[in-house]
Amino acid sequence: MIITVTPNPALDVSYRVAHLSPGSSHRVREVHERAGGKGLNVSRVLHGQGIGTLVAAPVGGVHGDAIREDLDAAGIEHLLLPVPGPTRRTIAVVAEEDTSGEATLFNEPGSHLAEADWQRFRELLTTRLPEASVLVCSGSLPPGRAADSCAELVRDAHSRSVPAIVDATGPALLAAAEAGADLVKPNAVELRETTGQADPATGARQLRERGAAAVIVSLGPDGLLAVTDEGSWRAAPPFAVSGNPTGAGDAAVAAFAAGIAARQNWPERLRSAVAWSAAAAAAPVAGALDDGVLQEISDRIAIEPV
Amino acid sequence: MIITVTPNPALDVSYRVAHLSPGSSHRVREVHERAGGKGLNVSRVLHGQGIGTLVAAPVGGVHGDAIREDLDAAGIEHLLLPVPGPTRRTIAVVAEEDTSGEATLFNEPGSHLAEADWQRFRELLTTRLPEASVLVCSGSLPPGRAADSCAELVRDAHSRSVPAIVDATGPALLAAAEAGADLVKPNAVELRETTGQADPATGARQLRERGAAAVIVSLGPDGLLAVTDEGSWRAAPPFAVSGNPTGAGDAAVAAFAAGIAARQNWPERLRSAVAWSAAAAAAPVAGALDDGVLQEISDRIAIEPV
Repeated sequence: MIITVTPNPALDVSYRVAHLSPGSSHRVREVHERAGGKGLNVSRVLHGQGIGTLVAAPVGGVHGDAIREDLDAAGIEHLLLPVPGPTRRTIAVVAEEDTSGEATLFNEPGSHLAEADWQRFRELLTTRLPEASVLVCSGSLPPGRAADSCAELVRDAHSRSVPAIVDATGPALLAAAEAGADLVKPNAVELRETTGQADPATGARQLRERGAAAVIVSLGPDGLLAVTDEGSWRAAPPFAVSGNPTGAGDAAVAAFAAGIAARQNWPERLRSAVAWSAAAAAAPVAGALDDGVLQEISDRIAIEPV
Repeated sequence: MIITVTPNPALDVSYRVAHLSPGSSHRVREVHERAGGKGLNVSRVLHGQGIGTLVAAPVGGVHGDAIREDLDAAGIEHLLLPVPGPTRRTIAVVAEEDTSGEATLFNEPGSHLAEADWQRFRELLTTRLPEASVLVCSGSLPPGRAADSCAELVRDAHSRSVPAIVDATGPALLAAAEAGADLVKPNAVELRETTGQADPATGARQLRERGAAAVIVSLGPDGLLAVTDEGSWRAAPPFAVSGNPTGAGDAAVAAFAAGIAARQNWPERLRSAVAWSAAAAAAPVAGALDDGVLQEISDRIAIEPV
């Protein structure tokens, strides 16, 4: 079973409007709500591919209740620790008649998570680690959490011989690398902002030097760069898939988690990651894959050593 | 006691961001939640002025619970009928570092309100009408409600000799006028859209001909036009107050309700309405009045017969 941790989950609310015009009033045509957060989206992808997964997160308030209900409805197993601070919302506004097509996102910061609550969460998580094939820690930390929070989970996982993947940025990414995470997955912008290196290969090598066993850099529609202890590769899709960029990175993380659990080699993992990522970009919501794109693309990924 | 009805209340959520940039992702700096809806804001103004008021509304779901809690915290008496459909949200995004200063609003439509639930609400409301000095029905109707819903409440009020004020637009405004509402209060744009008349005085006379005893047209920072069975007046503030336009109209309605309850004459009512309206425009949130503006402006309102 692949356990995903979402330290700062969210109730994702999406609004459809005709046009988006700053400073004016908009009638919302459609409202949708969905349990969200990066780790949770990784689990959605895995669940959709028939791979056993467990969503772990601290949750609070009515949005926490909504997350629990949505996961129950989706049939995704969860380990949700009730905490005092209410779980945040995100709002995605889609302007259906505007040409850009890009959603406008408003991300609430989330509630402060007390140290005692985080330690309770770690203890709860530890009770399920014996069942885990891989642990994934993904997304932002709640306000007030120390940057090494995901690194703590990496150490917890390793103490039980469970490999750990971290998708984070900034100090949390550095701390995860230093804790010896088996894989970290920044995108090119996050990697540059974290390491100060403009070149992805150089930035990736820096994270390896700090302790990460493997670094995957997502390059958007251009695919992935992998720098690992078994070699380095570029993996690219046969064509760029435009559409929903949210969730493409989470789908890549899901593929790596599944590949590590199944003891695939790196080229196999990279092939799945690029395909799932493109299929996620083509799907309407984060956590889903477009089956047509997945079928069409899977045998046509170019993997080259670098 | 002044009873306000909010047929389609909302949990008003406000977000502070640095800049608003369509198609990109925004970190929300601050989140505030507040019970909202036009009738409810009228009651907030009255309560703030020490005038007894009762908020009546159908509410549902977790946002309905939040409305109840917020009114309890504010010490405002309420008569909330639980209904199956969840109460809607509105989101107001304030971009603190953008020059325009106007909030960008996203208004959810609200849940369908079944006929049986509306009739239960009417019955519940009727139990409190003997205590009412004035009934106010204000704001949009839930999806699926007939346009004459506020008009039904006008007739209920009149059958118990309670005067009724309606702040609505379109078919609901016409129906309220035809039911003989004691006062209807469109703004100039709503009046033009409803009657097709570009001239506010002509539009107001049309609503009087349909049956409304008095018509007040809000002209934004230029003040108010009153067309009543005792005469017609223009009332203007000594200077335009820029700022928060949301709630200025609700403050005017609150003043008219208070003035009718206190048997003031029209010039007295108009003086309060212009002053409260300007003080509401200067206040940071709907339902509040800026005391400085209120003091400064109250004796300087120009009231002229037209």
